[in-house]
Amino acid sequence: MWVRNAWYVVAWTHELEAGRILARTVIDQPLALYRTADGAIVAFEDRCCHRFAPLTMGRLEGDNLRCMYHGLKFAPDGRCIEIPGQPRIPSSAFVRRYPTAVVGSWVWIWMGEPAGADLATIPPSVALEDPAYRLKGGQIDYAAHYLLIDDNLLDLSHLSFVHENTLGLDMPQWADGRPHVVPLGRGLRMQRWLRDHRPRGFMKKLGERLDVWNSYDFLFPGVFLQRTGFHRLGTADASGGKEASEAPLFYRLDEQAVTPVSARASRYFYAAGARAGDIDPDKLDRLFAVTEKAFREDKAIIEAQQKLIDLEPERQMLPTSLDAGPTQFRRLVENLLTAA
Amino acid sequence: MWVRNAWYVVAWTHELEAGRILARTVIDQPLALYRTADGAIVAFEDRCCHRFAPLTMGRLEGDNLRCMYHGLKFAPDGRCIEIPGQPRIPSSAFVRRYPTAVVGSWVWIWMGEPAGADLATIPPSVALEDPAYRLKGGQIDYAAHYLLIDDNLLDLSHLSFVHENTLGLDMPQWADGRPHVVPLGRGLRMQRWLRDHRPRGFMKKLGERLDVWNSYDFLFPGVFLQRTGFHRLGTADASGGKEASEAPLFYRLDEQAVTPVSARASRYFYAAGARAGDIDPDKLDRLFAVTEKAFREDKAIIEAQQKLIDLEPERQMLPTSLDAGPTQFRRLVENLLTAA
Amino acid sequence: MWVRNAWYVVAWTHELEAGRILARTVIDQPLALYRTADGAIVAFEDRCCHRFAPLTMGRLEGDNLRCMYHGLKFAPDGRCIEIPGQPRIPSSAFVRRYPTAVVGSWVWIWMGEPAGADLATIPPSVALEDPAYRLKGGQIDYAAHYLLIDDNLLDLSHLSFVHENTLGLDMPQWADGRPHVVPLGRGLRMQRWLRDHRPRGFMKKLGERLDVWNSYDFLFPGVFLQRTGFHRLGTADASGGKEASEAPLFYRLDEQAVTPVSARASRYFYAAGARAGDIDPDKLDRLFAVTEKAFREDKAIIEAQQKLIDLEPERQMLPTSLDAGPTQFRRLVENLLTAA
Repeated sequence: MWVRNAWYVVAWTHELEAGRILARTVIDQPLALYRTADGAIVAFEDRCCHRFAPLTMGRLEGDNLRCMYHGLKFAPDGRCIEIPGQPRIPSSAFVRRYPTAVVGSWVWIWMGEPAGADLATIPPSVALEDPAYRLKGGQIDYAAHYLLIDDNLLDLSHLSFVHENTLGLDMPQWADGRPHVVPLGRGLRMQRWLRDHRPRGFMKKLGERLDVWNSYDFLFPGVFLQRTGFHRLGTADASGGKEASEAPLFYRLDEQAVTPVSARASRYFYAAGARAGDIDPDKLDRLFAVTEKAFREDKAIIEAQQKLIDLEPERQMLPTSLDAGPTQFRRLVENLLTAA
Repeated sequence: MWVRNAWYVVAWTHELEAGRILARTVIDQPLALYRTADGAIVAFEDRCCHRFAPLTMGRLEGDNLRCMYHGLKFAPDGRCIEIPGQPRIPSSAFVRRYPTAVVGSWVWIWMGEPAGADLATIPPSVALEDPAYRLKGGQIDYAAHYLLIDDNLLDLSHLSFVHENTLGLDMPQWADGRPHVVPLGRGLRMQRWLRDHRPRGFMKKLGERLDVWNSYDFLFPGVFLQRTGFHRLGTADASGGKEASEAPLFYRLDEQAVTPVSARASRYFYAAGARAGDIDPDKLDRLFAVTEKAFREDKAIIEAQQKLIDLEPERQMLPTSLDAGPTQFRRLVENLLTAA
Repeated sequence: MWVRNAWYVVAWTHELEAGRILARTVIDQPLALYRTADGAIVAFEDRCCHRFAPLTMGRLEGDNLRCMYHGLKFAPDGRCIEIPGQPRIPSSAFVRRYPTAVVGSWVWIWMGEPAGADLATIPPSVALEDPAYRLKGGQIDYAAHYLLIDDNLLDLSHLSFVHENTLGLDMPQWADGRPHVVPLGRGLRMQRWLRDHRPRGFMKKLGERLDVWNSYDFLFPGVFLQRTGFHRLGTADASGGKEASEAPLFYRLDEQAVTPVSARASRYFYAAGARAGDIDPDKLDRLFAVTEKAFREDKAIIEAQQKLIDLEPERQMLPTSLDAGPTQFRRLVENLLTAA
């Protein structure tokens, strides 16, 4: 059911505060995360090996974690180093530890066998503090299977409908055209020009009409790394359908990660913003507020869709030309599951 | 499990407002209902054929309904008439449409094959606006299987106990006697005299002691059409157990419909009142308030009964002479299910 | 799944008020309890034999209980003595009645065949009003299987961790030592000395350092009868590990009973206090407040443990020397289930 051999975003780095244990669940696995004195991130299964009390109800003692039911104490490598009133500690006394890594501002966790954890396969994302950008981050919980959220991100035609008053404002182009789809190792690259866009609000100063270059990589399990460049009208035609050689007037960045929590729960991490020179903090607040409103729109329709699917799970969806991205990605996930 | 070939009350007519989509569920089927410009009522399955987003989250565009996930648009007959960015629309692109009809103030829906929908089989009910009566209507949700509510309506002995301080006030006759039961096509007719009733409140002006004629038809799935005539004492004996030939002093009307929503949910529609000349609006408000209080009494005991049944579903109830109506009606439902 | 042939605590005696019906559930069996005029306690299955309405929604009529759905009336022995409008009452018209008994301030119920109910097997507990003690009682609901609560009570090492700021304050001795375990008929006796305890608060007046004798019987299904004696330092060594022959300086009493409600619900009855001369009412309030705080600490960790167990029910716990009590008691419960 789950792809274990994969990196998942489990938290924002700033959520891991010194001296505190963070509770998370990824692919049905409850986790206890904390930092050691040197800043390294420990991720344990959130279950004491003794009688299955949660370690997130435990206590940090230096770099070690003590279960606060009967007092077993664990080192950062997962080994039990103390059983109260018992001198001998059996080798079977340990909790499972998962590899972690920080890339950008996300903490990643490898849910498979530690030997298979290859840091090089973690997608590159921009840190919230990167001076080249001005970004804000957040997160939201979904009561839905992660692949329904992936479907949503792989078919941006929904911007014209779900987000007709937010992200897709005056953008029928999202639904009327289709992106170019390129397979990647564990995902897809989606690219397209949206021609003759009429911007609103603070974007109007860029021009009455613009061409918009939209490009994103979408990678398992649901990592969405999007760049949107706003260019003067005519750039799309002049570039022959490819990315423009000239720099855009405004360069928007959206980075998101969908993490499966359980069969009907997912957590969605997101950052949005623009090139540092393109946006001031006030405008960023406004852009981010609209973006978060759009995520609530997605959440409402996806959770409703999940309920209808569960009512009659065997019903067949109607394929359309809108579904190229979702269909290809689902096939990729099937392959990962079969390989597991 | 469900009788599909049947008419069910799905709404009050006034609930279908121009320009709005109403969400309902009948026998586990989520529905999206709306009116076209000519007032006709469209009932769709509440599920876009594309990716199963609910149509009740969609938008009316004239007489058509657009799904607001990816923009597919449906005509009132259910056919898809637009897929954004795709010129060809396959014949498989449609949503299921259910026949509807208005009789009295209720909107009825036929949940079986449209060809079998015969308007002539809809039971006649009085419109709330009928000038011959003064009526009020309402609805309530039950967390119980509809047949438990039917059982309740088919054995009015419970008025003496569940409603001892509301509808059954000073009426031990409900429990002490038994009605005459006559089979109908898809239901039963229940009739009886309740002798020597001592009315209270505004009914006292009719006389210190009265004979009461109670008659109702009960039809699948749970349509209860009741007439109660209050006569001067002695009318029961003078009529030889039949309905009196003379008009009653006061003539009460109760019309109710139980609609199965799911295995453990039902919606109960009801109207109550009297002949226009028998009651003024203030008294009607009082009669209706007492009636709604009684429905909350029913709801409390039926939902508790449902929980006890579910705790040990195989337990056998004890048959008594009270159960003639419920038993005959359950047999009728069994036959409808077998025929299906 | 349940041991039926056993006495369970179902209520405090003061919860059974004249003229009121009390609703409880024990081992998945809903119950209706009330007192007759002579003070005897009747415990019926909370389910009318007619159509399964709850008797707890019924009405007491003298010593009899009338179901308020269709009016069947039951005598204290469970026999139906009235069916409205029906002269003959079949012998199958009765509700199940369970034997009850009062010992101390607890009402006990026997959930098996009445013939097997032996009052002599009910463990002795002290009444709240016993003049030799000053006690307070309470109860709390758990969303957990009763055996997880039993495990907790059978391994008091958790006092040093779960209750490190309440019952186990400055008491690492709970975790560092192990009690002496003696098998009883349907339970275990646990005894130990805790040496060199440094009391706080109002207990400080007993001495800077004390030896503490802790002894409790733990009996099926979860009856915990504990005596804790505080002695001057040195008494433990002088007594050679046995109970001291001299009377303690302070003598604390804790009596608790865990009652299984359903597979994931339990009710926990408890009394705490001390010898009448050892504590004044103000101090008792304080002792009791700390005790109830400790029970909320237990509830938090046990309910969390239950959720983790349910996530992967097949996982094996790690045995340690802490588990002698829980392990022996679980074996005893297995035997009772096999015998059933």
